Amino acid sequence: MTELAYVNGQILPIEQAVVPIEDRGYNFGDAVYEFFASYRGRLYRVEEHLNRLERSLRELHFPPVSREEIRDAVLRLYEASGIERAGLYLQISRAVAPRDHAFPATGAPQVIMTVRPVHEKPPELRQSGAAVITVTDIRWARCDIKTVQLLPNVLAKQQAVEAGAFDALFVSEDEVVREGTSSNVFIVSAGRLLTHPLTPRILPGITRQVILDLCKKLALPAEERFFSRNDLYAADEAFLSGTVTEVLPITRVDGNSIGDGKVGPATQKLYSALREDAGAAEQAS
Amino acid sequence: MTELAYVNGQILPIEQAVVPIEDRGYNFGDAVYEFFASYRGRLYRVEEHLNRLERSLRELHFPPVSREEIRDAVLRLYEASGIERAGLYLQISRAVAPRDHAFPATGAPQVIMTVRPVHEKPPELRQSGAAVITVTDIRWARCDIKTVQLLPNVLAKQQAVEAGAFDALFVSEDEVVREGTSSNVFIVSAGRLLTHPLTPRILPGITRQVILDLCKKLALPAEERFFSRNDLYAADEAFLSGTVTEVLPITRVDGNSIGDGKVGPATQKLYSALREDAGAAEQAS
Repeated sequence: MTELAYVNGQILPIEQAVVPIEDRGYNFGDAVYEFFASYRGRLYRVEEHLNRLERSLRELHFPPVSREEIRDAVLRLYEASGIERAGLYLQISRAVAPRDHAFPATGAPQVIMTVRPVHEKPPELRQSGAAVITVTDIRWARCDIKTVQLLPNVLAKQQAVEAGAFDALFVSEDEVVREGTSSNVFIVSAGRLLTHPLTPRILPGITRQVILDLCKKLALPAEERFFSRNDLYAADEAFLSGTVTEVLPITRVDGNSIGDGKVGPATQKLYSALREDAGAAEQAS
Repeated sequence: MTELAYVNGQILPIEQAVVPIEDRGYNFGDAVYEFFASYRGRLYRVEEHLNRLERSLRELHFPPVSREEIRDAVLRLYEASGIERAGLYLQISRAVAPRDHAFPATGAPQVIMTVRPVHEKPPELRQSGAAVITVTDIRWARCDIKTVQLLPNVLAKQQAVEAGAFDALFVSEDEVVREGTSSNVFIVSAGRLLTHPLTPRILPGITRQVILDLCKKLALPAEERFFSRNDLYAADEAFLSGTVTEVLPITRVDGNSIGDGKVGPATQKLYSALREDAGAAEQAS
């Protein structure tokens, strides 16, 4: 079991993995990424992540990148690590070129990865739920593209940590709850699950979509619909969703309890269903 | 005369300059920068750039960085290059640390630089003026901090290039003209120079401030005031300002001429005054 990095075809120790200082990912944030997780030795929802990656690359007019080569590289690095429950970070930047805003005439996309044991969320958060704060969404208008334009997310997460909370939720100027700093958000209100519709203002989360699909299977009423900060305050349940976040209950927002302050039944049901879908649970023997 | 790079104290050829793949500048755009230019062997307005750099670092709650050490490093690299008319790029990222949004508990800011001959703007643009397009400002709400969150700038500049224009101007949803992709913008309207006030939506340009100071000296009426896209269309003159841009006339916007379509007198006067301030002109012999 070894933590490893990958740089343009080469697998090497993370400490030795470097990129040129004129990589456009470094000078402009001109790069996209994906984060894969494995369960019991298998990467989960690889094709969904590759679909989203391809969309990100297309939206930013990157030079062609072979989906097959990326898939092979991801699987090769994962295999080399031998880590059962891994988090695999993949980043692709446009090119290395002398700094100039316009796209360079030459230069190929740069592919880097790291693989490590997943940094699991604290068990007490899974049991008792997380506290979150709300912050004004100051991000750019294309949060649907999974880019490294993440400084507002960094600042919001840090603000949450300093407030003793687990995460921050971005709320628009007109009070619409968007998403967390690295997760989507759901509420349960009047017996229905609600989550922000797919617009340029939020990430089209893989786990978000899995949850919507699971809701159908489980006959839980769910809807992609805008909801406000007040709707969140008044919700019966709330949770974050994401690749490592999975389904993480929110039981406090801005210092106030959500519902009765305990992890709710829909949240529990969806967490179990997601873990089952991912093959995370031990087989019944 | 040598193009050179600098990485955390070491001067080396640009092609050999690298950073770890887990530099936060690379994974989060968690980095700030400055761009210095020299004229006739002297870096221009170094202290003003250092002031702005210190402000950027402070706004983002970076660990302490010594102004004196940065100044020494900038001057040392510049001297080593022996380039009379240089562009010196400086970038400082928060730290190298395993990827996690919140600020890392340990790790020091990473300092990289490059120095090269300035990539001068084409002489025909200086003589006949540049064409620009306007685009919707989709950037984050803290453009007053000089960070590498520059992907929207990259996309707008590329859109301009593909439209056969020199640059794009960001215009807010409510029609306020903000700035260019790497410059501020001024117009001349009813005998007064106008430029966007200092708010979180624009960069506090060093050259912008020099121009406002020169206006006082030259008794040119100037005002920091919002102006609209229509004000820009109807202006008598317009120009971009920036460290390498200097004062660059705009004579076409979105396919229409500004004023009579020629470089105007205020623009010419300010270009000359700026070049003189910078010591750019040959001494009269």
